[in-house]
Amino acid sequence: MSGQSFEVKTIAHIRTDLKEKFGIPRQSGLVKELGGCIIFEPPYRRGEAFRELEGFSHIWLLWIFTEAIRDGWQPTVRPPRLGGNKRAGVFATRSPFRPNPIGLSCVKLESIRTDEKYGIVLDVSGVDLLDNTPIIDIKPYIPFADSIPRASGGFADKHASHTLDVRVNEELLNRLPEEKRGALIGIISQDPRPAYKNEPERIYGFGFAGFEIKFKTDGQTAEIVDIINTDD
Amino acid sequence: MSGQSFEVKTIAHIRTDLKEKFGIPRQSGLVKELGGCIIFEPPYRRGEAFRELEGFSHIWLLWIFTEAIRDGWQPTVRPPRLGGNKRAGVFATRSPFRPNPIGLSCVKLESIRTDEKYGIVLDVSGVDLLDNTPIIDIKPYIPFADSIPRASGGFADKHASHTLDVRVNEELLNRLPEEKRGALIGIISQDPRPAYKNEPERIYGFGFAGFEIKFKTDGQTAEIVDIINTDD
Repeated sequence: MSGQSFEVKTIAHIRTDLKEKFGIPRQSGLVKELGGCIIFEPPYRRGEAFRELEGFSHIWLLWIFTEAIRDGWQPTVRPPRLGGNKRAGVFATRSPFRPNPIGLSCVKLESIRTDEKYGIVLDVSGVDLLDNTPIIDIKPYIPFADSIPRASGGFADKHASHTLDVRVNEELLNRLPEEKRGALIGIISQDPRPAYKNEPERIYGFGFAGFEIKFKTDGQTAEIVDIINTDD
Repeated sequence: MSGQSFEVKTIAHIRTDLKEKFGIPRQSGLVKELGGCIIFEPPYRRGEAFRELEGFSHIWLLWIFTEAIRDGWQPTVRPPRLGGNKRAGVFATRSPFRPNPIGLSCVKLESIRTDEKYGIVLDVSGVDLLDNTPIIDIKPYIPFADSIPRASGGFADKHASHTLDVRVNEELLNRLPEEKRGALIGIISQDPRPAYKNEPERIYGFGFAGFEIKFKTDGQTAEIVDIINTDD
């Protein structure tokens, strides 16, 4: 069986407001307000394939780290949760640079609905996926098997609670559609900087939901300094 | 991106005492005593790839349902937890007959050790994988993202607690090596019958750890009636 390989196919894509890597929450569920819409490939747009799914509050998404494919895998990586300068084995992390670049996310199932153009679509929240990520499987979250509250989470546990206080002028925030505001604050509160190097005067920028967002942070508080509509 | 596909490769195989489908627990973690040993393909037998993993109590295994590949996928399946006669959509179940036959299991990490022949191997427990199943990824279980105790588990919740009382004559049980006894009782207590059709006189048989196990059940109590060493 050595060296055996298998082909997996895209069954769907997810649409999110995350257009670039910067700003993507480091795990699913961290930014509850961040939504996504899953659009299936034609063979899977059939109601019967989703029968009974409405009874589940959460689902697993298995997906492809498309950006990691070209870079291949590395035996060790520098997880941001270790400050970006200490190495951990790739199998001790959820890094994209794995032998098989498959991601695993648990998202909340908000609704199962029928779209005129795409047939059955799933609205979800708590996403950590780039816009247009290919999805290869959807599974129900089964709490009696999947939820282990007392599991120990190694180095990930130690840094789970690091968040930033986010400040923003109301007038500035009003440039964003109301339903995107909570998600933006959630993203920045998760400290999206690649490593915790404090450069309080540095302005970080990233694209979100058709806007260019600028902020700075001293490592405790973050201030949003500009929100520019880039769809115009 | 429509119809895009990706190649995934086997990174390891798991050795378990489960030599056939009958008897495999329906989810990971249900039979805590059921162990497995993960043996890696040569490129992944390097200690550095597992650095920091020792801090995690549980890991995710992503694996291939090899037995399901030849049968393809079906939009609906008959989950045993719905009595085997009601249909649910494949995406509302963890059935093997999915568009991409990938399984997801959460197992306890018992030890990371160096084997003379195979290099780094992982001992795990709570498995629900057939012996020699190909593994395509190993990820740490991160409780703050993965554990959602209050999630609702649809039809899977309703039947989660159905178990059988297992009776066995001590002399019979002593035919099994001591370390296998708890796992066997755990497997039968999970009611491994394909559907809950009560045929109290029927003798069910399956292979486990080099033994042929025979039992019968009235749906509440199961009695082990024979344990035959098949390795002789």
